[in-house]
Amino acid sequence: MKDVFLVGVGQVPVREHWKLSLRELGARAAIAAMTDAGVDRVDAVVVGNMLGSRLGHQDNLGSVIADAAGLLPCEAWRVEAACASGGLAVRAAAMAISSGGHDTVMAVGLEKMTDAGSAEVTAALAAACDHEYEAAQGFTFPGIAGLVMRRYLHEVGCGPEAFAPFVLAAHEHGRRNTCALYRKGMTLAEWQESPKIASPLRLLDCAPVCDGAAAVILCSERVVRSSQKALRVAASTVACDTIDLASRKDLLTLGGAVDSATRAYRIAGVKSKQISLFEAHDAFSPLAVLSLEACGFARRGEGIRLGASGAIRRDGSIPLGTFGGLKARGHPVGASGTYQVVEAALQLRGEAGENQIVGAKYALTQSIGGYGATVVTHILEV
Amino acid sequence: MKDVFLVGVGQVPVREHWKLSLRELGARAAIAAMTDAGVDRVDAVVVGNMLGSRLGHQDNLGSVIADAAGLLPCEAWRVEAACASGGLAVRAAAMAISSGGHDTVMAVGLEKMTDAGSAEVTAALAAACDHEYEAAQGFTFPGIAGLVMRRYLHEVGCGPEAFAPFVLAAHEHGRRNTCALYRKGMTLAEWQESPKIASPLRLLDCAPVCDGAAAVILCSERVVRSSQKALRVAASTVACDTIDLASRKDLLTLGGAVDSATRAYRIAGVKSKQISLFEAHDAFSPLAVLSLEACGFARRGEGIRLGASGAIRRDGSIPLGTFGGLKARGHPVGASGTYQVVEAALQLRGEAGENQIVGAKYALTQSIGGYGATVVTHILEV
Repeated sequence: MKDVFLVGVGQVPVREHWKLSLRELGARAAIAAMTDAGVDRVDAVVVGNMLGSRLGHQDNLGSVIADAAGLLPCEAWRVEAACASGGLAVRAAAMAISSGGHDTVMAVGLEKMTDAGSAEVTAALAAACDHEYEAAQGFTFPGIAGLVMRRYLHEVGCGPEAFAPFVLAAHEHGRRNTCALYRKGMTLAEWQESPKIASPLRLLDCAPVCDGAAAVILCSERVVRSSQKALRVAASTVACDTIDLASRKDLLTLGGAVDSATRAYRIAGVKSKQISLFEAHDAFSPLAVLSLEACGFARRGEGIRLGASGAIRRDGSIPLGTFGGLKARGHPVGASGTYQVVEAALQLRGEAGENQIVGAKYALTQSIGGYGATVVTHILEV
Repeated sequence: MKDVFLVGVGQVPVREHWKLSLRELGARAAIAAMTDAGVDRVDAVVVGNMLGSRLGHQDNLGSVIADAAGLLPCEAWRVEAACASGGLAVRAAAMAISSGGHDTVMAVGLEKMTDAGSAEVTAALAAACDHEYEAAQGFTFPGIAGLVMRRYLHEVGCGPEAFAPFVLAAHEHGRRNTCALYRKGMTLAEWQESPKIASPLRLLDCAPVCDGAAAVILCSERVVRSSQKALRVAASTVACDTIDLASRKDLLTLGGAVDSATRAYRIAGVKSKQISLFEAHDAFSPLAVLSLEACGFARRGEGIRLGASGAIRRDGSIPLGTFGGLKARGHPVGASGTYQVVEAALQLRGEAGENQIVGAKYALTQSIGGYGATVVTHILEV
């Protein structure tokens, strides 16, 4: 496969963007990424988005965003794998480069969730799980996360407070990210006082509903310039598992994440211990723990210990969600996977400010659609 | 770019499939294509679908269809460009092969429209045009097609009956396709008696709402076997235009189709006169005419003559919609582009039965999302 390089990043601060439309959000991120890369055109645009159809009544977002960013008549289309759509856009863009058909391709992840009512958003998000066997029976994502968390507590024998360090570390990292939705930090007491919404899962175990857009520019070796702060996309993989939980052999193993990460490590030729930071899909705190286990940072049932030990903090052995993760930076679902890649790139470029991981060499990002149904993994290399 | 070969096709008859779910439709087409190709696994699945989220409350269809076809834990995801989603799935699958990352990839286009009420379907389809500037103002697709048809009549100076031959030829071809929705043929009188739904557009100028799924298997030169009836994917391109009509310079030129076709001819190294058959996106009869002009089979304003002259019939110079097209085979929107590629492949393999174009060498397919916003073009070669 041809080498792929990441040469530009752009992001809109994650907020409730009531004054910006979906196309305006996308165009802002796109133009920021092109400015960062020093390019004024691209050969193709891949848009990652989940909810534009349901909540914004807009399909065909490839054409919409390419037009808004002034890039017509370039190739442009949308990819969707629920909450993994933003990571998937980067995957498809990398594929477009390695195919040899294009030299410069942009991936844009975008989502606008806050214009709709919360019941409408919850129903739309439930389309990421199995409609016939889960959602239509009333099983929504907080319910799924609560069920998995309860099983984890039962099998591993820890208490729910063991999950709190993952939440507190995310909010600590978010404090120093100007693009994060939540920048005030969080105390253990605040987490403890938050209501249980799907016992034992608390409200503050969940990533927030919000709006955002992020973009990256990828290019081929043929056109990469020495003036660009180019990073190599060492691996870009996807693996799937059953969408419904009931069909899985083990409720506590994210099989798709294991397969996706294993392929990524093999393609990149690196081991988990070489990873400098992990931008994980911490939409719910149990998902952060299962992701750490799936990607080889802990054995099954032992990921929970990385919270109390401090390993996931900025100065720990595997810094997690170094810009706040989905939990504190925010989770505009179809954009989150692209934000992860932007943040990983900033770390490897040494531009992470107060959140900088010193000497970062390999960054791992993992974007998950459904509760592990579709898993997109990237490894970036300085 | 690495060569890509098409080695298997599968299709479900286009019908009102009230007894088959979206996943069952997709799995049937997928298994038929794998059986045809003589493979029992693929490296990746790309699903093309437009309305599953709105009408079926199911996102994340990559994982759903891969699971239903017994292909987990392969890579799988969905692409969407409105009614071009089915062609786009083939485009993305071809890219996955030429990237060198995969050797065998399946594209599945699927759609289930008939479970919903017609108002709900019309609203969902309107997400393919510009929501803010068109759909929210009440502009739906039949309205857009009627407006373009009226402009064509005004500029070209023909009467609406000049469009009838395109409808009648489609239904004549559909008579001999067992997978077509409409197999009874159509008379001029039936077309003339059908109501005007967006004057001068008649009901029978429009492709029908229906259900269907089609799939193709693509593979690399490395794994193609002599036992497979392999066809070369000579070109696979996408180009975009503005999604809203008001921003276009010329209402009668499908700029995205011109760009997409021009790129395809250049990549394939063929000219329009070498094309043996054209599977066009005849969702509305004016769209068939504009597509013929965009792809170089007639000059602007002269495509209409290809109807009366008989050029578009099976024995004409540019056979159009040889299995009935969207008009008679049916238009399950996110599947139609994949059906086109299946039909083109059957022609080139000499398996088109009574619709066979003798000596077919190059087949052109073109799948359009919105009224020309996203255009996917393929050229297949024997």
